[in-house]
Amino acid sequence: MASLRAAGMRPILAASKRIAAPSTLRQTLAVSSSRMVSSYYQGEAQGPVVKTDIPGPKSQEAITKLDTVFDTRSLNMLADYTKSFGNYIVDPDGNTLLDVYAQIASIPVGYNNPALVKAAQSPEMVNSIINRPALGNFPSHDWASVLETGILKVAPKGLNQVFTAMAGSDANETAYKAAFMWRRQKERGGPAVEFTEEEMESAMNNQSPGASQLSILSFKTGFHGRLFGSLSTTRSKPIHKLDIPAFDWPQATFPQLKYPLEEHVEENAKAEADALAEVEHLIKNWHLPPAAVIVEPIQSEGGDNHASPAFFRGLREVTQKHGVLMIVDEVQTGVGATGKFWAHDHWDLPTPPDMVTFSKKAQTAGYYFGNPELRPNKPYRQFNTWMGDPARAILFRAIIEEIERHNLVENTAKVGDYLFGKIEELAKKYPQDFQNLRGKGQGTFIAFDNPKRDQFLAKAKKFGVNIGGSGAHAVRLRPMLIFEKSHADILLEAMEKIVTSW
Amino acid sequence: MASLRAAGMRPILAASKRIAAPSTLRQTLAVSSSRMVSSYYQGEAQGPVVKTDIPGPKSQEAITKLDTVFDTRSLNMLADYTKSFGNYIVDPDGNTLLDVYAQIASIPVGYNNPALVKAAQSPEMVNSIINRPALGNFPSHDWASVLETGILKVAPKGLNQVFTAMAGSDANETAYKAAFMWRRQKERGGPAVEFTEEEMESAMNNQSPGASQLSILSFKTGFHGRLFGSLSTTRSKPIHKLDIPAFDWPQATFPQLKYPLEEHVEENAKAEADALAEVEHLIKNWHLPPAAVIVEPIQSEGGDNHASPAFFRGLREVTQKHGVLMIVDEVQTGVGATGKFWAHDHWDLPTPPDMVTFSKKAQTAGYYFGNPELRPNKPYRQFNTWMGDPARAILFRAIIEEIERHNLVENTAKVGDYLFGKIEELAKKYPQDFQNLRGKGQGTFIAFDNPKRDQFLAKAKKFGVNIGGSGAHAVRLRPMLIFEKSHADILLEAMEKIVTSW
Repeated sequence: MASLRAAGMRPILAASKRIAAPSTLRQTLAVSSSRMVSSYYQGEAQGPVVKTDIPGPKSQEAITKLDTVFDTRSLNMLADYTKSFGNYIVDPDGNTLLDVYAQIASIPVGYNNPALVKAAQSPEMVNSIINRPALGNFPSHDWASVLETGILKVAPKGLNQVFTAMAGSDANETAYKAAFMWRRQKERGGPAVEFTEEEMESAMNNQSPGASQLSILSFKTGFHGRLFGSLSTTRSKPIHKLDIPAFDWPQATFPQLKYPLEEHVEENAKAEADALAEVEHLIKNWHLPPAAVIVEPIQSEGGDNHASPAFFRGLREVTQKHGVLMIVDEVQTGVGATGKFWAHDHWDLPTPPDMVTFSKKAQTAGYYFGNPELRPNKPYRQFNTWMGDPARAILFRAIIEEIERHNLVENTAKVGDYLFGKIEELAKKYPQDFQNLRGKGQGTFIAFDNPKRDQFLAKAKKFGVNIGGSGAHAVRLRPMLIFEKSHADILLEAMEKIVTSW
Repeated sequence: MASLRAAGMRPILAASKRIAAPSTLRQTLAVSSSRMVSSYYQGEAQGPVVKTDIPGPKSQEAITKLDTVFDTRSLNMLADYTKSFGNYIVDPDGNTLLDVYAQIASIPVGYNNPALVKAAQSPEMVNSIINRPALGNFPSHDWASVLETGILKVAPKGLNQVFTAMAGSDANETAYKAAFMWRRQKERGGPAVEFTEEEMESAMNNQSPGASQLSILSFKTGFHGRLFGSLSTTRSKPIHKLDIPAFDWPQATFPQLKYPLEEHVEENAKAEADALAEVEHLIKNWHLPPAAVIVEPIQSEGGDNHASPAFFRGLREVTQKHGVLMIVDEVQTGVGATGKFWAHDHWDLPTPPDMVTFSKKAQTAGYYFGNPELRPNKPYRQFNTWMGDPARAILFRAIIEEIERHNLVENTAKVGDYLFGKIEELAKKYPQDFQNLRGKGQGTFIAFDNPKRDQFLAKAKKFGVNIGGSGAHAVRLRPMLIFEKSHADILLEAMEKIVTSW
């Protein structure tokens, strides 16, 4: 990896292949021609422009208006998406920020990407928007083709089927439902065994045996969504969970690695072995046996917590040993940001996970699976009216094409290595402000801890960068896949300014 | 109402105001000019065309292909949405069916409605598709305006705020979350009282007091979704619930009315009084006290079960008396089909429900509320990455405009009365086949029971109509809002053919 950095970053695209901003955007972006920052985005801003405090007067006025009908207390900044372009988010006061938060890691190929404009204007997209089908009952004649040329083209190895959903939470919850149905079917003796009268009656009363006494095992500091089943597996922060009834499901400790990794090899290996032992103990002993274990490749809301490929291989082994399914939650890590299309591609698993869930950068959601037994034994068991959104599936297909056309996964790997190396240098210079740097070799999915994290994030805006946090202390970097060395330099400069300004 | 029918139905629109099919569609629809069936849709098919068995050979081929990657066992029919228009759904074999199922009641203003085509092609829509925001953090500068000119313009009386979601299940579940947070806040002594350490710690372990020991009360045979919290309140069929862990939440009997209503006045009044008494008993005695009661105006999946306005006024009274919230689930009944924009407009409630949830015909989802205390006391408690989809909110705005432009709610009221009267006549002629006719004065939201229901639905396709069922025996009619007297006549003719064909 070091050799790539030594060789210097080169634009992946020739200038002639650059993406041109639509003319309406070019007028608003006040582009000068002296330096081309993006090798993809012709007409992208050359750097941040901060004209006012954020929120500025125009934003404040709009926020006040919005708050009368919509809770704005979690508002970070107001955006004008008609003016945002590429890596830059623009607000109503004309502030132009380099966006390395990207709608909580949900923008893959840049604001107003012209290829996506084209896809959104296509007759196929228009048709999907206005004739939304109940997919389980009335799929369109070309739904197989939309899946095969899009979502399934990037299916993780070994998983050739998909259940489409709406967002991360229901992607995970439908995967849980599949796990529970699979497990009970196995216990019952196979798909041909009919439900008993007792099961059918008790299910209607939310009682066992019809409502199963099973669980999903998740990890402490993990995040898997905020609906009732997914929230029962989310263990990030009290504010996410307070007052909401929850299932009595088990949680295992996620290994808490110490950094730099090379200085804590034995300690970290022990932390991972202990965590696996705890998983095995819970599988064997929890009063509601786990049908599945769900895990994020990198705990993305809970503080950017990493574990080694060996840990995940161990988890695959433990789950297989005990007939428990392994669900990999790639809602935030999926679609290229870690330098692989799926973060679990880094693990070199002997056998694939049983299910992989996705959302965010896919702009649609669902879960992949391979085992035909994960299709429930009868229809209408895994079903809902919409079962996803073909319009969003069509958009994901265009995103995949854009990623392939520009080798954007390779790009994040390279730019991530560059960025990581430069933050390592910052960490040497300012050790207090760049603690526990993590994400080496994980593309641009990089984080570090800062003791004054919330101030750090607030200050970042003054220096022209939109950055997010995770957990209590982490600064999490979530650039888009079109983030290049030149953007990294702007980010690095801004981060150094932040920590030297206090 | 009788006078309207006596006066005869007149097209609401002059011919000059008719919606013209796009030229591409006009070519494929094989329209003759002899009779104009739709007064809105110029170029709509004049009637069903059944060319093959359904599925025909082309459909079968596509279904086989689709099944390799997507579970097709719940497939009803494959559709070609590029060729479907107005009230008619077209399949790949060229069969053209009058669609009174309408994607499980989710198509409001017709397939390929030209006004929606225009909205879908607008720069605003394109922008929303490709720049999807994390709405809670980074709303667009004009989000207030999108809400106010769309979703909020049709807000139920007394409810001026909205939380946007993705589909019916999470619309209900986020409403439940709001109810739990509201109830615990009241118990705690108001929004300013901080969470205790014990609450915060126990919440992380899914234990009380942090995870509340509260419930949502729902009704037997009700349907509120299929994720873990919503499924715990769904009581429609075992197949929806089997094997899935559930909360031990209470259910009250939904009054089982006898038809014709005028012959069972006292009996039905007693059934409703008993149901209300049961609700009150459960509120006072269930071991997990209900924070809210959720109810559908018409139980739409569980068999098209109706109750009187007096029952719902009684429910409002009981819930208010005990400080329990009343959530009206208008996911299927909302947006015009009952002859009012919201079905609960029929009830003449003394005070509005606390929350009203919506989805389906709105093409987006969420819940309305009025009480500012239903905004949790801190940000990030009711939050997720996307919090709905602005593209779908923009589409809903266009749907609302179309409904207003053509007085479509008035249309469903009138056409519904006509249709109901005609089915009453059929019921006199064929009493075995049109039992328990219900939905009088409820627009086109009409149902009846048929002892061979599944055969009835299968045969309907042979006679050119796509109809759905609900519960075990009900034939449920869910035409679009653009369904007119002429379409009703086609439906009536087909239904008579079905029951005289066996």
